[in-house]
Amino acid sequence: MDKEGRKDETVELARRRGFLWQAFEIYGGAAGFYDYGPLGALLKRRIEDKWRDFYRREGFFEIETTTVAPREIFEASGHLESFADQAVVCTHCKSFFRVGENVRVGVNCPECGGELEAAGEFNLMFQTRIGVSKGERDERAGKKSEGYLRPETAQGIFANFQRLLRFNRDKLPFGVMQIGKAYRNEISPRQSLIRLREFTLAEVEVFVDPDEKKKHPRFEDVKGRTLRMVPGDGEEEEKSVGEVVSSGIIANEYLGYHIARVNEFLESIGIPRAKIRFRQHHRDEMAHYAQDCWDAEFLSDRYGWMEIVGVADRGDYDLSSHASLSSVDMSVHAESAKIIPHVIEPSYGIDRIIYALLESAFYEEQVGTENRRVLRFKREIAPIQAAVFPLLNRDELKLKAREVFQMLRDASFIVEYDDSGSIGRRYRRQDEIGTPYCITIDYETLDNDTVTVRERDTMKQVRVPIGKLEEVLV
Amino acid sequence: MDKEGRKDETVELARRRGFLWQAFEIYGGAAGFYDYGPLGALLKRRIEDKWRDFYRREGFFEIETTTVAPREIFEASGHLESFADQAVVCTHCKSFFRVGENVRVGVNCPECGGELEAAGEFNLMFQTRIGVSKGERDERAGKKSEGYLRPETAQGIFANFQRLLRFNRDKLPFGVMQIGKAYRNEISPRQSLIRLREFTLAEVEVFVDPDEKKKHPRFEDVKGRTLRMVPGDGEEEEKSVGEVVSSGIIANEYLGYHIARVNEFLESIGIPRAKIRFRQHHRDEMAHYAQDCWDAEFLSDRYGWMEIVGVADRGDYDLSSHASLSSVDMSVHAESAKIIPHVIEPSYGIDRIIYALLESAFYEEQVGTENRRVLRFKREIAPIQAAVFPLLNRDELKLKAREVFQMLRDASFIVEYDDSGSIGRRYRRQDEIGTPYCITIDYETLDNDTVTVRERDTMKQVRVPIGKLEEVLV
Repeated sequence: MDKEGRKDETVELARRRGFLWQAFEIYGGAAGFYDYGPLGALLKRRIEDKWRDFYRREGFFEIETTTVAPREIFEASGHLESFADQAVVCTHCKSFFRVGENVRVGVNCPECGGELEAAGEFNLMFQTRIGVSKGERDERAGKKSEGYLRPETAQGIFANFQRLLRFNRDKLPFGVMQIGKAYRNEISPRQSLIRLREFTLAEVEVFVDPDEKKKHPRFEDVKGRTLRMVPGDGEEEEKSVGEVVSSGIIANEYLGYHIARVNEFLESIGIPRAKIRFRQHHRDEMAHYAQDCWDAEFLSDRYGWMEIVGVADRGDYDLSSHASLSSVDMSVHAESAKIIPHVIEPSYGIDRIIYALLESAFYEEQVGTENRRVLRFKREIAPIQAAVFPLLNRDELKLKAREVFQMLRDASFIVEYDDSGSIGRRYRRQDEIGTPYCITIDYETLDNDTVTVRERDTMKQVRVPIGKLEEVLV
Repeated sequence: MDKEGRKDETVELARRRGFLWQAFEIYGGAAGFYDYGPLGALLKRRIEDKWRDFYRREGFFEIETTTVAPREIFEASGHLESFADQAVVCTHCKSFFRVGENVRVGVNCPECGGELEAAGEFNLMFQTRIGVSKGERDERAGKKSEGYLRPETAQGIFANFQRLLRFNRDKLPFGVMQIGKAYRNEISPRQSLIRLREFTLAEVEVFVDPDEKKKHPRFEDVKGRTLRMVPGDGEEEEKSVGEVVSSGIIANEYLGYHIARVNEFLESIGIPRAKIRFRQHHRDEMAHYAQDCWDAEFLSDRYGWMEIVGVADRGDYDLSSHASLSSVDMSVHAESAKIIPHVIEPSYGIDRIIYALLESAFYEEQVGTENRRVLRFKREIAPIQAAVFPLLNRDELKLKAREVFQMLRDASFIVEYDDSGSIGRRYRRQDEIGTPYCITIDYETLDNDTVTVRERDTMKQVRVPIGKLEEVLV
């Protein structure tokens, strides 16, 4: 099957098997909105739990802040002024487009071939109104009630900085994480899994003393690791983290440490090392708040290199802005003086990571005369951990299979029971959703309490006592 | 301490210890928005995980749909037309109020004593615009781009009904759950933890064949359980679920089964049985989609009886509405005919449940000459599972304590390390956040690898070998 075929197959399988569904499809859909079906939601939960555990082990704590926030937050963060795209509109069909590589005034409309004209700048935040929504009393009250859907979870952390500092007993450094929805009102995302208007971010904000920022206490642990790096003004190269930091390309140990950890996390959930690189932003593509920024990129068959994580040094931009707009002191009494902490931020796009996992786990192979489609998820992230089948459609086998199924469910495994169709068909279905083990109950089971366990990737079957099943699945 | 004092103490402790914080406080806050601090987020996560596990064992599956949805969804759901409150405005200070028990035309303004006048009806959904947000082309396009923040997660499930049915291999009944943010743009929530504008719902939609709806296969398991019930037109009484269903007060077994299960869940996380009752809605307070509805109410010291869960029979309202507006067939081929499934819905307000847990877990008691404040969370939901202390501020004890701390963290326990201040002060701090066990490392530990474990509620201390710690904490 050709490359194009393979790509469509991934998306089609994700839809058909209940991973990802275009939202509101019964009303024709809305570009940039996707729902997670039962298997997608399980997969997402696993990745979020692993992520949470990964950063919790750093000693970081998690908070959960609101997705709607008032105007002041985004006045301070700079999003009101700077989070915008230029648009053009077709004079003929009236479609709007974001100005980018292939679309600008002078080019023909991609929809109808008409003439495009400049349509000004559009802020990418979803706007709403908090409280009374008509007959605003005066302009001041109008502004006061303006609300926005957050474009990043980070601002909820910055706005709580003082409380978090106190929670950490007034000591630096400390890290705070948050997983949650964020929003970006794209001008014209068209249909795509990648450019979503509503998406999930998993973000960490590490507050550090700028005077000590260059030193990370565990930098030794990571400095020997080699990564594929693309510096802002250089060529792609495989280099050690230590090297890139000491040559000054990555500005400090803290940023280097977190870049290495991002890579570790991505590999741990099963993104192939060969498909990850770290690319430094050019000065002119950097977000308004960043001093330095590196994207972890995934090499997609369909989209080429695409950002899945950003690791930024936000400096004191956010805390200083909030301090100045709110007149609340954001400084910390450090060793020598009162300083404003700097922020190192790894920011993960969970939906894109899920896309990357689906794409890179998908294999199609010839087995005998058959085409086998399989999602080779790592065992720890597979949505369903095991499927239980009675070999034949007989009551005594079904009863026993139900028993094994219930036993595993009671032990908190996510398991499926299936007794429909041939065994071969049931294996194929589980392969397609990435289930690592299929457990089959046959007549021998009734004799000696053993079952066959078939492993997804090798397709090998072994005989296992029911009492040992939990060990095999873990 | 008097009743009033105790109440304020709960909220104050929740704020001070990092459970719940008023959002955007640096900008003066916004009524109806709260953030979860590090301990609140841990507590919330535990409750959500327990809830998920509870319904997963029913065989239900979870999905995750978008929080923003286009106009059609809420046209079909009836929220555009019916999800509204009447408002009054003060002619003097211009404050808006929701018309309710204590506020209406003819009453004086609660803020300034001025005269109130009718201000019309306000829809309670947050409105936004999807895509291009100025210079709308025509009215049709304007409507097309209208979006709303969902007032319930349920509609995302209904809109995916056909796919979910297919995922369940075209069989009824099946249940689908979702945990996520929902929004209600209250006219004037004032400052309160209870009437939030952004909140978390955990909802289950069970799709059943209306012809078989009255029968639940596991009704036997619950029918003997007694609950405190307030029928729509009757007095509060302790009755068995079986009795209330067979007398027709609860319309069917399915609804009865889920009411009993809601009660089971609430008790399992530690809401005292004596503070739970089920109250049937009167005809005139029922939501526009409900055929029958029961609220699980919590008896709050501060707010009196308040709704924490709703259990509704939504009939075929939602599926029929979506079928009619979208022209998509929502019927199911059942035993005899093509029917539209009915929906039984338990809908949990997670934030209010957390408030209920904080309030009912809070105790203040005299221990010797001291006032002890303690959160008596059940062990399974306590945010921190154990705290590890070196008895004295000596390097050898601190080193060993760090080791024990790291061992427990590696075993996936949520633990804290604390070496600041006296042991008494450290115990008090952990009592206040509800940590069930404090582990102290002393010189005997260095000799024989045993530690003292102090239990929160009894304050009893026992000596435990380090190797047995994990067993004790589980």
